[in-house]
Amino acid sequence: MKIAIAGAGAMGCRFGYMLAKTGNEILLIDEWPAHIEAIQKNGLTAVDGDVRDTIQIPIVRPEEARGQVDLVIAFTKSMKLGEMLGKIKGIIHEDTKVLCLLNGLGHEETMRKYVPEKNIIMGVTIWTAGIIEPGVVRVGGVGSVEIQAIDPSGEKVAHEVVEVMNEAGLCAVYSQNVLFSIWRKACVNGAMNSTCALLDTNLAEFFASNYAEDIVREIVTEFSQVAAKEGITLDIDQTTDYVITASKKVGSHYPSMHQDLVQNHRLTEVDFLNGMVNKKGEKYGINTPYCRLITQMVHTKEQALGIKQ
Amino acid sequence: MKIAIAGAGAMGCRFGYMLAKTGNEILLIDEWPAHIEAIQKNGLTAVDGDVRDTIQIPIVRPEEARGQVDLVIAFTKSMKLGEMLGKIKGIIHEDTKVLCLLNGLGHEETMRKYVPEKNIIMGVTIWTAGIIEPGVVRVGGVGSVEIQAIDPSGEKVAHEVVEVMNEAGLCAVYSQNVLFSIWRKACVNGAMNSTCALLDTNLAEFFASNYAEDIVREIVTEFSQVAAKEGITLDIDQTTDYVITASKKVGSHYPSMHQDLVQNHRLTEVDFLNGMVNKKGEKYGINTPYCRLITQMVHTKEQALGIKQ
Repeated sequence: MKIAIAGAGAMGCRFGYMLAKTGNEILLIDEWPAHIEAIQKNGLTAVDGDVRDTIQIPIVRPEEARGQVDLVIAFTKSMKLGEMLGKIKGIIHEDTKVLCLLNGLGHEETMRKYVPEKNIIMGVTIWTAGIIEPGVVRVGGVGSVEIQAIDPSGEKVAHEVVEVMNEAGLCAVYSQNVLFSIWRKACVNGAMNSTCALLDTNLAEFFASNYAEDIVREIVTEFSQVAAKEGITLDIDQTTDYVITASKKVGSHYPSMHQDLVQNHRLTEVDFLNGMVNKKGEKYGINTPYCRLITQMVHTKEQALGIKQ
Repeated sequence: MKIAIAGAGAMGCRFGYMLAKTGNEILLIDEWPAHIEAIQKNGLTAVDGDVRDTIQIPIVRPEEARGQVDLVIAFTKSMKLGEMLGKIKGIIHEDTKVLCLLNGLGHEETMRKYVPEKNIIMGVTIWTAGIIEPGVVRVGGVGSVEIQAIDPSGEKVAHEVVEVMNEAGLCAVYSQNVLFSIWRKACVNGAMNSTCALLDTNLAEFFASNYAEDIVREIVTEFSQVAAKEGITLDIDQTTDYVITASKKVGSHYPSMHQDLVQNHRLTEVDFLNGMVNKKGEKYGINTPYCRLITQMVHTKEQALGIKQ
């Protein structure tokens, strides 16, 4: 399959690497000059424990992407999705499917602006990856992917995508309710990322507090109330347990928003997690004060650090 | 007047110093060994700009306080008020007035456990002070004090206290609604202290964000709704403006809770600000999610830092 990876950060490179190894024709697309230069010069290196494997793989800036692909896998930062899809519209043809694997909420609305409904595939993954240095990506651990075509007419091709991913060892399944899985993962990120970023704690430090579970439950409750308005049922008890269990399992990990805000002073994805729930909540007449205050505080911190206008 | 200062930190020392200079008989009471030793050995030194003035003034630990005083001025940390009043009950006689000048809410309930209603005077002050080192206190700037007897029978003596304070230059007035002033000051502290502590910003950095005023307004709204249940009218617009104006005036100052939590890793007074509003809100059936989340987050941070069990 001809596949473009739109957003070749850690996760994009992991998927690109694994799909290239099983014979797919991969084009990486990214904006980071040092990363592009390193991969063009030295290839993409995947590191798994002591094992390093380098493959030659084309990488271009979005404006340089040419030709026609069967599938685009979007792996940008949340706030960059629309911009990326706009820039690569030259490679998205009438039958090109676009699979969105971003974290966070509301991306299907952005997708609809650039891709016909019949070609949109939404997904969620629990694979992880990390950039070690430009051109070098950490690919250890295991994970899985769930995907679903938004329109029934896209189901056949989406099943082919599942097969291609499984050949590459990506453990994909065709989901009957991918929006549920996306919302449930957003609950994990919405409860943990922003709180750990604001409190400058890792997950283990956060859960050492006997206030932590109350905070998680209130955030999950707001997500659940808003999700219900979109036809997605998130049981509050079950989802709270899911968030707590998933978070305690990874222990002393700093969530990605902590890495963005505290460690690297980069703009966060809060508008696509707590901020999106508050925005949707306003639309549906549901008050979501925990999500609202968290969003306001993260933005205040971003502005205090000079990383947001 | 024979006056004991129960809690001779920065503010207690300022009041003790100014009242001693105009001939009152002052006894300082505190628990900080280095501070007690320094004042016993070298006297209390007040620093105002280039001017240093040292006076001899007795200071004892609470358990050592003896005799009878006309007035106790309580200046402890909020969470230490009850313990202090319990320990110095030997100097609180039938006619001893006790004036509470602590920041925060709910102290009149603590006072009632240790002091007869007729002897309770509540107050609020905008004087500031700082400890430079044990035994040395910074006393620059200007301020004022408002006090009011809780019971009408205490009014006469409270007026005498106002006179004694004014002789000492403390700019005191007898208030007709001290609880209003206490709540309004608590709004300033509840909106600014906990947010700046959580975000690790000073007031100017906080207000540089265009989310800051929304955060302040929502916190003030919760304070106002709960205050109304106690017969205190805090107009939301006016109080929001008051908080913003008061805070912007002091600019690059770090509020005391930032000093406690971020700079010195000390337990905060959040339970007497946002936490008290949430607690009272629960009692009155008013939902106060901003105050609740702020309290939960401050406690989570205190626990992550190992300063709270």
